[in-house]
Amino acid sequence: KTLAVADEQSISGLSSILDGLKFNSDGLVVAIAQNVDTGAVLMQAFANRAAVAETLQTRLATFYSRSRKERWCKGETSGHFIKVTGVYVDCDGDSLIYLGEPIGPACHTGAETCWFSQVGLTDNSSDGAASLEAVQTTQHAQPTLLALESTIRQRREQMSQNAGGKPSWTARLLQNPELLCSKVREEAGELCQTLEQDEGKERAASEMADLLYHSMVLLNLQGVKMEEVLKAIRSRFGTSGVEEKASRSKK
Amino acid sequence: KTLAVADEQSISGLSSILDGLKFNSDGLVVAIAQNVDTGAVLMQAFANRAAVAETLQTRLATFYSRSRKERWCKGETSGHFIKVTGVYVDCDGDSLIYLGEPIGPACHTGAETCWFSQVGLTDNSSDGAASLEAVQTTQHAQPTLLALESTIRQRREQMSQNAGGKPSWTARLLQNPELLCSKVREEAGELCQTLEQDEGKERAASEMADLLYHSMVLLNLQGVKMEEVLKAIRSRFGTSGVEEKASRSKK
Ligand SMILES: [Zn+2]
Ligand SMILES: [Zn+2]
Ligand SMILES: [Zn+2]
Ligand SMILES: [Zn+2]
Ligand SMILES: [Zn+2]
Ligand SMILES: [Zn+2]
Ligand SMILES: [Zn+2]
Ligand SMILES: [Zn+2]
Ligand SMILES: [Zn+2]
Repeated sequence: KTLAVADEQSISGLSSILDGLKFNSDGLVVAIAQNVDTGAVLMQAFANRAAVAETLQTRLATFYSRSRKERWCKGETSGHFIKVTGVYVDCDGDSLIYLGEPIGPACHTGAETCWFSQVGLTDNSSDGAASLEAVQTTQHAQPTLLALESTIRQRREQMSQNAGGKPSWTARLLQNPELLCSKVREEAGELCQTLEQDEGKERAASEMADLLYHSMVLLNLQGVKMEEVLKAIRSRFGTSGVEEKASRSKK
Repeated sequence: KTLAVADEQSISGLSSILDGLKFNSDGLVVAIAQNVDTGAVLMQAFANRAAVAETLQTRLATFYSRSRKERWCKGETSGHFIKVTGVYVDCDGDSLIYLGEPIGPACHTGAETCWFSQVGLTDNSSDGAASLEAVQTTQHAQPTLLALESTIRQRREQMSQNAGGKPSWTARLLQNPELLCSKVREEAGELCQTLEQDEGKERAASEMADLLYHSMVLLNLQGVKMEEVLKAIRSRFGTSGVEEKASRSKK
């Protein structure tokens, strides 16, 4: 899939914008690809001037491979492209975010993102003496909403394994769609009540948390991912700054 | 605020884990700080072995400044720390995510994150001839949920400026709490119906999008940020991989 890439000079203003970036001694800036809908950070590599110019034109995340000393468009070989919806520059111009939609896993290992290994210190004190230990576990770096979705998924998997044990609240809801729906309606009502009865911010946040959790269990029951919900929101409400500026200047 | 930092050797397993990282010729790995709740990428810098070891111990995002040739703990001067809830390593060990809670703005400019400048190409065709132009706009890199929150906030601001013009749907809801609450209850019911009447995944995602939008308008009316809701979710449901492994090994 080769898209025509115009020379930098042929696009008005492009050289000026690229001149504003702070390329390092290797001619590179950091390029971080992030899932526009879920916020998950997908991968991080580097981009040279040409790779940035190409990304802006093709809207496919393109980088520069330091090892192979050549440009590479993520997905050219694997088909796992990242469709870039927006390119953002940080305060000092040396780090970019490629915000976009991943087509398939972002990591060459097949993982959704490259960060699936957590390192940390645990308190291993057994005989009263504090004792720290460094451990590494398989754990994806996930913002809270995705982490909650994973937790719900895990509770569902544990359901089949837990014969005889006390079922989790999530399991009870998944096995009783009537109860689940009544809870979703109830929590929506409780959220409204925090406004109707002036219950304050903390109560509103708490009931919204309840509503989010219960509705996400309902989504899991129907095999719907939060990513799809967020994509639907974006298609309805999203306007990028660049697009909006363009539409304003046309009037 | 100086926290005691133990020598690498005194923590069991730490050297081994640090040995697993791929430091570049300058002894550095990329370190990306990300908001654990909202997923917003906060800032990106570099960390050397000591900075990583310190971050794991203090749980405050610590980096290595290449310009000043010294360690720096984000917030030491400004008070704007990033409380690290988890450290993640990418597939080839040369890029870390510091997932955490920012205390105040992450960018030294006062912006919440460092990426508040979007670059892109707009179609500037006026007389029939296609003509691309590169533009830069002030626009924060925001995942969809945060972008929706911003949009709702903007519609609210436009409300006071729009005297006489047709109010946006968001404005109508904000000015009519009864209508807003009835919509929240209605959308919750419609979401439940997609399950009760087996309407399929796309309808479920669509109604969840409706519910999210309307409940977020309600949150805006009460001055509640999604970040606070997500923080409440994390405090109720969150267990980090490292903590869970530790609790399992204690049994
Ligand atoms: Zn920078
Ligand atoms: Zn990877
Ligand atoms: Zn209740
Ligand atoms: Zn409740
Ligand atoms: Zn890799
Ligand atoms: Zn890497
Ligand atoms: Zn900054
Ligand atoms: Zn409706
Ligand atoms: Zn609806």
